[in-house]
Amino acid sequence: MRNLNQDTITDAVLARHAGCADPRLKRILTSLVRHLHDFAREVELTEEEWGRGIEFLTRCGHITDDKRQEFILLSDVLGLSMLTVAQNNDKPAGCTEATVFGPFHVQGAPHYEPGADISNGARGIPCLVRGTVRGVNGEPVPHAQMDVWQSDEDGLYDVQHAELDHAQARGILHADEQGRYHFRSILAVPYAIPHDGPVGELLEAAGRHPWRPAHLHFMIEAPGYETLITHVFRSDDPYLDSDAVFGVRQSLIADWVEQPDGTYLVEYDFVLNPAAAGSQAGAGNEH
Amino acid sequence: MRNLNQDTITDAVLARHAGCADPRLKRILTSLVRHLHDFAREVELTEEEWGRGIEFLTRCGHITDDKRQEFILLSDVLGLSMLTVAQNNDKPAGCTEATVFGPFHVQGAPHYEPGADISNGARGIPCLVRGTVRGVNGEPVPHAQMDVWQSDEDGLYDVQHAELDHAQARGILHADEQGRYHFRSILAVPYAIPHDGPVGELLEAAGRHPWRPAHLHFMIEAPGYETLITHVFRSDDPYLDSDAVFGVRQSLIADWVEQPDGTYLVEYDFVLNPAAAGSQAGAGNEH
Repeated sequence: MRNLNQDTITDAVLARHAGCADPRLKRILTSLVRHLHDFAREVELTEEEWGRGIEFLTRCGHITDDKRQEFILLSDVLGLSMLTVAQNNDKPAGCTEATVFGPFHVQGAPHYEPGADISNGARGIPCLVRGTVRGVNGEPVPHAQMDVWQSDEDGLYDVQHAELDHAQARGILHADEQGRYHFRSILAVPYAIPHDGPVGELLEAAGRHPWRPAHLHFMIEAPGYETLITHVFRSDDPYLDSDAVFGVRQSLIADWVEQPDGTYLVEYDFVLNPAAAGSQAGAGNEH
Repeated sequence: MRNLNQDTITDAVLARHAGCADPRLKRILTSLVRHLHDFAREVELTEEEWGRGIEFLTRCGHITDDKRQEFILLSDVLGLSMLTVAQNNDKPAGCTEATVFGPFHVQGAPHYEPGADISNGARGIPCLVRGTVRGVNGEPVPHAQMDVWQSDEDGLYDVQHAELDHAQARGILHADEQGRYHFRSILAVPYAIPHDGPVGELLEAAGRHPWRPAHLHFMIEAPGYETLITHVFRSDDPYLDSDAVFGVRQSLIADWVEQPDGTYLVEYDFVLNPAAAGSQAGAGNEH
């Protein structure tokens, strides 16, 4: 294994994984090495460009902390996140579609009673959100847990406000016995993904805008159903056809209706897919 | 651009780069997105695996600082570094071959006079290194600048000793008027690349060892010649055929000869490639 050149090195690297005891890891490494090498050969990557790539990844790592996730942003803007979501969420017709998770979910959001105002001081026009959570056969999903998060009227999530030490415009609620839910928050607005870091520079260099259409994030969990991670988008948004992260689904778009008092109302009914027999989404598959 | 699925999203992402004003960046992004997406489709990447990938890159970023470069290690063990070196250093026969740069070079190493001991206190068996720097037509390269670096007898570079505040076993020297050089240092030994981080975990999971055969690093620069980045390896090393970073070239292997007093001597003659007319390696091409 000496004197490898740009053509022979790929097989040499793959041969090195012959002793990999985990067949899934071996399959992933094989495909990853082949595509990484094919990419470098195809574009005739120079040493200077390689160095800029190393520097780019380093800067992504250094700007990432417990409140900012530049690698998820990178995956999002390259379409890898939505591709992964799409190929893992092929649900039966009638089920609510999934979309990207995004980098702004926080574990351990505060719990709220039905009808509560989860904005918790976040700035924005008041908005009532309500609807139902049902299964694909029409049955209500009682007490479904709904983890909700959104940006404020400045287009920023709570974790993007450095001075803020508590959750705003995010919370965990439960549907009632009949699968009905309602809560108060603020009107969702379009916003630019964080673009003051390496991913923003990449978008700029590629001639792309960083905007996402207005949306509310939902993660809905209930025993016996697949966990649903999705958004509800606003039908009047100018970025529905150019979402920076490719996450829009027609079925997730709803009318956000202005009320006589200037507040808004959006109604959306979620439909969950029953979990396959003997499995639950997530941890249930682990052993 | 709504309702993208795992098959249609690739063209949608590429279309978003239609306005990219830099044709080279556009070509690189096109190939990168195609291969990244093909990889995810080919292995049917799950959302949990995607998440582990994000976490892996995040940990690589967080362990990287001004003395440790996990992304270069990652590129090295996946063979990307050597592939890039190989396809950018196709020199005429007779020239010294290039190999990987590695993550342990430091800008601004101390300067030494010819014959000096660059170990500067690093632990190891004393070793004299000498030879010539010539051009491919046999002409001496007077005053060629040689940046040299190596590990100590524990297999660690100076930057890996947290308590050390000065350079050891690294330095910058110049050849004489006739291209002859000599300096003292310590015997190179095989060492394991840093494997207490995510790249080490990857090697472990893949059933791979982290060892590199013993070597001295050289970066040689002289006006009118291409910069040469290479190693000199030890002919008696057990890892010559399984270098963790795929960097061994037969032509870079030399005999390190034990002397009657227990010290070592290695002789190696470097042959530089003249720079193409009108260009210098590196900055000379920038404008």
